[in-house]
Amino acid sequence: MKDKACIVGVGESAYTRDVELSKSVLAIQLEASMRAIEDAGLSPKQIDGILPSQYGPTTEELAANLGIEELRFATTVHMGGAAAVASLQHAAMAVSSGAAERVLLVSGWNGYSMQRARNILSTNVTVLPGGAIARDYYMPYGLTVPAQWYALIARRHMHEFGTTQEQLGAIALAMRKHASLNDKALMRDRALSLKDYLSAPVIADPYRMFDCCLETDGAAAVVVTSAERAKDRKHRPVYIMGAAAAHPYPADEFTNREDIFHTGLTDAAPKAFAIADVSPSDVDFAEIYDCFTFEVLQQIEETGFCERGEGGAFVEGGRIEIGGELPVNTHGGLLSEAHVLGMSHIVEAARQLRGNLGKRQVKGAEIGVVTGWGDFGDGSIAVLRR
Amino acid sequence: MKDKACIVGVGESAYTRDVELSKSVLAIQLEASMRAIEDAGLSPKQIDGILPSQYGPTTEELAANLGIEELRFATTVHMGGAAAVASLQHAAMAVSSGAAERVLLVSGWNGYSMQRARNILSTNVTVLPGGAIARDYYMPYGLTVPAQWYALIARRHMHEFGTTQEQLGAIALAMRKHASLNDKALMRDRALSLKDYLSAPVIADPYRMFDCCLETDGAAAVVVTSAERAKDRKHRPVYIMGAAAAHPYPADEFTNREDIFHTGLTDAAPKAFAIADVSPSDVDFAEIYDCFTFEVLQQIEETGFCERGEGGAFVEGGRIEIGGELPVNTHGGLLSEAHVLGMSHIVEAARQLRGNLGKRQVKGAEIGVVTGWGDFGDGSIAVLRR
Repeated sequence: MKDKACIVGVGESAYTRDVELSKSVLAIQLEASMRAIEDAGLSPKQIDGILPSQYGPTTEELAANLGIEELRFATTVHMGGAAAVASLQHAAMAVSSGAAERVLLVSGWNGYSMQRARNILSTNVTVLPGGAIARDYYMPYGLTVPAQWYALIARRHMHEFGTTQEQLGAIALAMRKHASLNDKALMRDRALSLKDYLSAPVIADPYRMFDCCLETDGAAAVVVTSAERAKDRKHRPVYIMGAAAAHPYPADEFTNREDIFHTGLTDAAPKAFAIADVSPSDVDFAEIYDCFTFEVLQQIEETGFCERGEGGAFVEGGRIEIGGELPVNTHGGLLSEAHVLGMSHIVEAARQLRGNLGKRQVKGAEIGVVTGWGDFGDGSIAVLRR
Repeated sequence: MKDKACIVGVGESAYTRDVELSKSVLAIQLEASMRAIEDAGLSPKQIDGILPSQYGPTTEELAANLGIEELRFATTVHMGGAAAVASLQHAAMAVSSGAAERVLLVSGWNGYSMQRARNILSTNVTVLPGGAIARDYYMPYGLTVPAQWYALIARRHMHEFGTTQEQLGAIALAMRKHASLNDKALMRDRALSLKDYLSAPVIADPYRMFDCCLETDGAAAVVVTSAERAKDRKHRPVYIMGAAAAHPYPADEFTNREDIFHTGLTDAAPKAFAIADVSPSDVDFAEIYDCFTFEVLQQIEETGFCERGEGGAFVEGGRIEIGGELPVNTHGGLLSEAHVLGMSHIVEAARQLRGNLGKRQVKGAEIGVVTGWGDFGDGSIAVLRR
């Protein structure tokens, strides 16, 4: 599949945290979709494939409202936060096999004003990949939200490898710094110091407030087409060099895993790099699914940017900031831009590779990586190039 | 994608209509899955892709319970009764692109003992592709179940083309006749005469009792692998020559359609035949999603087995019975075998093409077609060969 499919359009709705501005998930997703389609220089009628989010309107509702007349490809990836990047793999397969020619990916929600992520389990556990286990075995013991599950894994990493709270803080600070360069970032005007970080309330030890991602109303969308069709588009095409997804074992819960740090990404990353025929050292920046700070560190390790246990040192010293060795989440990520379920990471990667992001442009960016991370450790990754 | 992927394993759970035998959907789907995997001569550990049903356990629950350690491909097709055959297309793409090597498809439910199809809208309308429209616009006017929606379309066909109740009856009788040759068919011992058919109670005019499919507890499963890997399997491989899926316009409801008979299948069928490089006249049998009798007639027309309006005459005179010109639903279908959401049609087609089905074998069967049909007219089709 190497280089057979391209991202040719990206778009977002407004990102808000205001109950007065609340809209339906359908309205928010349509706003992002229309912008991505327009950015691709297409009309909705030309879209013939949809990869919707599991947390939103159905394919049929999107198609009817967009006026898509010839829809011939649609499937829903149920991988939580890993779904957006896994959907990119599916879209690449669809256009390279001829099942569809122009595929729309969209995800987002009214995650602040309506279905707050913190309540996700109390409202509908089955929306999570391992929902039944969470409901039956975790919730009775008080483990009700993702922050609690992942806190256990973060603490284990600190115990085994000496990872520090300050290193987690370095991740939060880097995302916040990047957000200050992004007019769409909800936290663009809120500077964060290490002192602020360390004095914030504990949510689930070792996670403090700024280790946790934002709850947001918003959506982002992407249009994928074949490399051939991408050539005459408005913007420089962004090639999908390689993509892969995988589930950990067992897939439905994490307490019985032999190796708690071995997730879907551990298996998917080498596969994606092999298809792309490049290695982590060739990568100029990474947009990493940052539901919490430690998950960034873990994915940096499991993607192969450093060895396991070295993630703490890796994220220090500005190495993951713009201008550093591997800029991470140049838009501010889920931690400081907005939480639209991973699609904004793809949007940002595509814009970096178009090369005109102004003050937050990674200079000379040729190859970027985007990852996805779903409960309880589903992983996805795409290697992109300009 | 022509001939690049094969069906190498098929299996079913027990099919029951007995609340005393009720099991969880997960248990039923695991039973069918294990049989399909065993039929393929594989162990569950060798499966690396899952296409689950939208109406059942999550991919993660299936993977964990089957002991699948290296799961690298999973997506859920939300097309109701069109999902199983559309999933076959996705599986073919996955194995031919290298995203996975051995993919499991499974669908089924406890549709008799627990989640009866007749109550599907009152319990959870969003499980249907056009659920929101049904809830907001159809239900307030009393159109609460699929039998009612499709009855309107059947009546329109009768009005426009002179299709008769007896012709719908010929479909019900053919399925019942085939069921008598199938030990797994729930209606194997219940002979049906035209007189029985015509004197049965009206459900939603023109649909009488025997126009409507069964509610069943049961599941069926299929294993797909690449043509290369299929060669050394236990059974003769069944090649996926071509497959396609499509949605009608508008996709989320049917009352505003310019052409009420133009469904997803109308668009998908020529595409699948073009990929397969054969035509409807080359087909030896067809397994057609038979939620109701008229939908068989409509799909016969829209697949191109005859012209629109000629379906009524086509189904008469034993033409769709084993021994006829185009045997349809040789297992008895949803009407007389069991309703497991379309997967049993794929299972039956594969068995016909293996060529050892005994008394219900279509002699000399070389090429078969399987279709799927989802609310409100999502369509899918696969052309298979021995």
